[in-house]
Amino acid sequence: MADDIVKIKTIGVLTSGGDSPGMNAAIRAVARAAFHSNINVIGIKHGYYGLINDEFEKLDTHSVSNIIQRGGTTLKSARSEEFRTEEGRAKAAENLKKYEIDALVTIGGDGTFTGANKLSKEHGINVVGVPATIDNDIIGTDETIGYDTALNTALDAIDKIRDTADAHERMFLVEVMGRDTGFIALETGIASGAELALLPEELTHVDEVKEQLHDMLKQQRRSSLVVVAEGDETGGAMKLADNIKDDFSQYDVRVCILGHVQRGGAPTARDRVLASRLGAAAVNVLMEGHSEVMVGVVNNALKITPLRVAISKKKALDHTLIDLARVLR
Amino acid sequence: MADDIVKIKTIGVLTSGGDSPGMNAAIRAVARAAFHSNINVIGIKHGYYGLINDEFEKLDTHSVSNIIQRGGTTLKSARSEEFRTEEGRAKAAENLKKYEIDALVTIGGDGTFTGANKLSKEHGINVVGVPATIDNDIIGTDETIGYDTALNTALDAIDKIRDTADAHERMFLVEVMGRDTGFIALETGIASGAELALLPEELTHVDEVKEQLHDMLKQQRRSSLVVVAEGDETGGAMKLADNIKDDFSQYDVRVCILGHVQRGGAPTARDRVLASRLGAAAVNVLMEGHSEVMVGVVNNALKITPLRVAISKKKALDHTLIDLARVLR
Amino acid sequence: MADDIVKIKTIGVLTSGGDSPGMNAAIRAVARAAFHSNINVIGIKHGYYGLINDEFEKLDTHSVSNIIQRGGTTLKSARSEEFRTEEGRAKAAENLKKYEIDALVTIGGDGTFTGANKLSKEHGINVVGVPATIDNDIIGTDETIGYDTALNTALDAIDKIRDTADAHERMFLVEVMGRDTGFIALETGIASGAELALLPEELTHVDEVKEQLHDMLKQQRRSSLVVVAEGDETGGAMKLADNIKDDFSQYDVRVCILGHVQRGGAPTARDRVLASRLGAAAVNVLMEGHSEVMVGVVNNALKITPLRVAISKKKALDHTLIDLARVLR
Amino acid sequence: MADDIVKIKTIGVLTSGGDSPGMNAAIRAVARAAFHSNINVIGIKHGYYGLINDEFEKLDTHSVSNIIQRGGTTLKSARSEEFRTEEGRAKAAENLKKYEIDALVTIGGDGTFTGANKLSKEHGINVVGVPATIDNDIIGTDETIGYDTALNTALDAIDKIRDTADAHERMFLVEVMGRDTGFIALETGIASGAELALLPEELTHVDEVKEQLHDMLKQQRRSSLVVVAEGDETGGAMKLADNIKDDFSQYDVRVCILGHVQRGGAPTARDRVLASRLGAAAVNVLMEGHSEVMVGVVNNALKITPLRVAISKKKALDHTLIDLARVLR
Repeated sequence: MADDIVKIKTIGVLTSGGDSPGMNAAIRAVARAAFHSNINVIGIKHGYYGLINDEFEKLDTHSVSNIIQRGGTTLKSARSEEFRTEEGRAKAAENLKKYEIDALVTIGGDGTFTGANKLSKEHGINVVGVPATIDNDIIGTDETIGYDTALNTALDAIDKIRDTADAHERMFLVEVMGRDTGFIALETGIASGAELALLPEELTHVDEVKEQLHDMLKQQRRSSLVVVAEGDETGGAMKLADNIKDDFSQYDVRVCILGHVQRGGAPTARDRVLASRLGAAAVNVLMEGHSEVMVGVVNNALKITPLRVAISKKKALDHTLIDLARVLR
Repeated sequence: MADDIVKIKTIGVLTSGGDSPGMNAAIRAVARAAFHSNINVIGIKHGYYGLINDEFEKLDTHSVSNIIQRGGTTLKSARSEEFRTEEGRAKAAENLKKYEIDALVTIGGDGTFTGANKLSKEHGINVVGVPATIDNDIIGTDETIGYDTALNTALDAIDKIRDTADAHERMFLVEVMGRDTGFIALETGIASGAELALLPEELTHVDEVKEQLHDMLKQQRRSSLVVVAEGDETGGAMKLADNIKDDFSQYDVRVCILGHVQRGGAPTARDRVLASRLGAAAVNVLMEGHSEVMVGVVNNALKITPLRVAISKKKALDHTLIDLARVLR
Repeated sequence: MADDIVKIKTIGVLTSGGDSPGMNAAIRAVARAAFHSNINVIGIKHGYYGLINDEFEKLDTHSVSNIIQRGGTTLKSARSEEFRTEEGRAKAAENLKKYEIDALVTIGGDGTFTGANKLSKEHGINVVGVPATIDNDIIGTDETIGYDTALNTALDAIDKIRDTADAHERMFLVEVMGRDTGFIALETGIASGAELALLPEELTHVDEVKEQLHDMLKQQRRSSLVVVAEGDETGGAMKLADNIKDDFSQYDVRVCILGHVQRGGAPTARDRVLASRLGAAAVNVLMEGHSEVMVGVVNNALKITPLRVAISKKKALDHTLIDLARVLR
Repeated sequence: MADDIVKIKTIGVLTSGGDSPGMNAAIRAVARAAFHSNINVIGIKHGYYGLINDEFEKLDTHSVSNIIQRGGTTLKSARSEEFRTEEGRAKAAENLKKYEIDALVTIGGDGTFTGANKLSKEHGINVVGVPATIDNDIIGTDETIGYDTALNTALDAIDKIRDTADAHERMFLVEVMGRDTGFIALETGIASGAELALLPEELTHVDEVKEQLHDMLKQQRRSSLVVVAEGDETGGAMKLADNIKDDFSQYDVRVCILGHVQRGGAPTARDRVLASRLGAAAVNVLMEGHSEVMVGVVNNALKITPLRVAISKKKALDHTLIDLARVLR
């Protein structure tokens, strides 16, 4: 890594893996920051699939205007089995050279970063990762792009379910996304005033769940709402319902699986600002000569983390929040 | 039925059956319209269950203020097996007499009206029904209270799913509510620009569905979105996915079941105005001496329909909209 | 006007005047319905300005996909002083002939229709109008495209203002759009539970307003919220505040002018379905040989109204709603 | 200050100053955390006004249930001139003693904290402050309760204005709240992709503003959107419009003042979690023997700041964000 400014003429940018709200804001920030330093930008469609299959298009200032507020990704995303092979990555590297792309910004999650790291190691391509996933499971950044929006989308849905739960004095098991992490479940649990939040990071004993629910129902609560992380070892809301509904038959236990709704929608202010910071930072660190790193924001300051570190483990939940949920419910 | 104004001193009001957004606006309108004519109002909690079990509380102008915008129902709703029996209804009638309630406004759907009709027939209680259900399946009114809100909630969710469908060029099967009717599916299908909407009112052949989807995918659509009514004879989105996913394996077919989210949330302007009109109308028709009727709005004018007619059949879909969906997709 | 199907090869479509949510859904419907009948569609940018200045572009099925949910208008809108002149309209007609456009669909309000009517009269161009304005002031249709969305946007804002009004027990004067009509003010007034709604259609005496507010405040209301139509003869919320604030100094009278926020945003389900119906209907009536007409929906059925009638007077408010507002407040 | 746990039997809680979304979540957290430690909670209505005028009411677990999602404050807020006097504060202290309240949690901004500090100094009342204001101008916490919600409400409005600005290629000056600070203006400016954001913290030269706008308009932007902080020394959006509109007459310069809408609405996930953390922390620090302090979250960890420090100066803007706005616009 060098201290001097590195001459970069052309940057490529792509989104890969599961989409998350704010990816467009990140694309825009990469492009605008690059243009600000007189760097060309080429958008690569469909992630690594397009990198291999030559789906390159030059971006200008208009191609990224009026996209900051859009969900999804204008560059599209896709899976690419071929990129998992050395041959696939060799083709990708060839295309990058053909278009004289000096560095690549990859927007996505850990799978995206694993691929970027290999591409760099094998072909000397300068790469920087921008963490964007609703799961918030990437270390090296306090939040990932899309997490705040997904949180609010899930919360808005849970508020609506609370309306109907209250009206009928029912029990609802609401399953939220987050793969094998409980970030969305924990924070929506606190923010919705849920009776319980079941997290993959904590061992869930169905018997204890039943007991806790019985205790709370004795306090004459009008309804019960349990947030279940999709990765919880109970197997999700549907399976949990099968296991407990006989014990709570008077409450007419219902299940809601919020699903892909959580991936879409206009990004929140927070996600757009984060995406703007990280997109611009990605260009800056490339100009500073970094590669094989991820940009993040930790304690309100920019942080650069080696990609191999970023993909080495999952981010842990904040245990003070787990305790808080117990005190306030 | 009399032409003169009938002396009514006290009205009871309850919500029953599945809750729908706007029920609180209807409760408020019943109360405010009654107060305006110097009539007392008693709220009965938990629908027919509370009617039998003496959950009565006097309402004043403050008890209904600041509820017009709330989802759910402040009077709660519940099922009552007992009310389906003659004994149950006899107890209910006794309570109504005990509190000197001259007439009862029941806010709900066809099950609610069936019960109200029996109560009136057996015990001479004056009853009027206010149609409130997200399913929109009641004849005698162009729309039921809650339908417009449910429509917009479902549409908002489908817009978000479209974001992620587009980003990944995937196929999504989205299941919406509506019991055995397709109102929500048809209108959200049109409004979301869905590729197809599968309705209980129309015979769905899975082979035709596959063919139509194949045809549309040949036109290089970026994604496919099929709205499936929960009552469609294909058995819902999950079952349909099982039947078609092998034929569309390249599109990574996904299922979203929107579920109870559609029942909650702040009611739309339209639902609040409709609930306000119908709640006030319910008081007026009781004062005019009507009973065993439902109030509705047809062609922008108030309409009074006998309860036995209202519960005799389901409302039919507007076939011009079914044709429109075909032309525009 | 002919009964037979008229051979139309190419249709032009434009949006003009103030934009309203759902214009994109209408553009899409015009295009899709035309394609369904093998008719070409040319989009004209910037309304009549672009018609004169040759801003024509051919639309295909992709150019209107994924726009149904967008606010604003992808065809843009603009004012054109030149189109008010005979010379301007002559140029416009020439362009239409140059591109072999057989008929023109104009989406907008009364100003738009006035222009369309003149173009047709002077140059024999077949025109049909699609009513789109948030003001809802066009006769020949129960609702105009954009009205329902504007209503809900305004209502959502008023709900938020009610939160803060209640917290502080303040009086708020909220000004809503609608030009010289009170549709938005009346319906948001009812739907928000406003203490008063001041409408251009009704004479407002400031002394009476004061008296009514004093009466209501004596009932120990937690807050007062007055919705003021921008066209009310009191001169709008700011002026009214100047006139009454000394009489209500203990309530810390505040003013909110909702403004252009009411014109934007994703259209509601209702506006998208209406726009879809009217856009498709516009193509159909042109194929049936009509011209100089507006398409509308009255009592849930399509209605064709001569443009000269549509622009001859403003739609009147529903007086039963004015009475309802008085009873329920 | 002591290390041991202090015996607290009863806590009082109030909200004061301008209301902000999340105050109810904070009230709930104070109450629930207190109950968890077997402490009684008395809610004081109307802030310091109620403290002097004996508006005390005991809270139980039900009085704070289902309020976490509500805007405004269930305890109401008010101004109190009397509390600014020694006599007023003496009455307040007397009431606190009468109800045997050991400690007081005050939820609000700097004015609230100033009062609390005096009350403690003069009468030995244990007080802790919870920072809640949409302005985000309190040091000792990265964010104040309500800021994130206000940000998203303003952003949502600006997105809608962008729709109509784009449709008409107009220039809009949008005024956002924040009193004499530019937090909301800066972050909504970045998040909306505004052409400019005018902040009280930075000297604004109208001539430079004009020049920058002219430069940007030369790049063929479809519209211009300038976010103006209400405290900007240009005097706000209306005054700025008067100063520049002649130079941009072809763009039909429009003004929107978002106003009190920004204070209401359901709090975001972030604000609810923050309010939950700080409300619970307030109880904890009182139990630890602290007084005359404010609780905050800095770098994701709880931080305790003496009230006199918290009120000594305004929080500064993050200058990296100001630079970012310049690069990305």
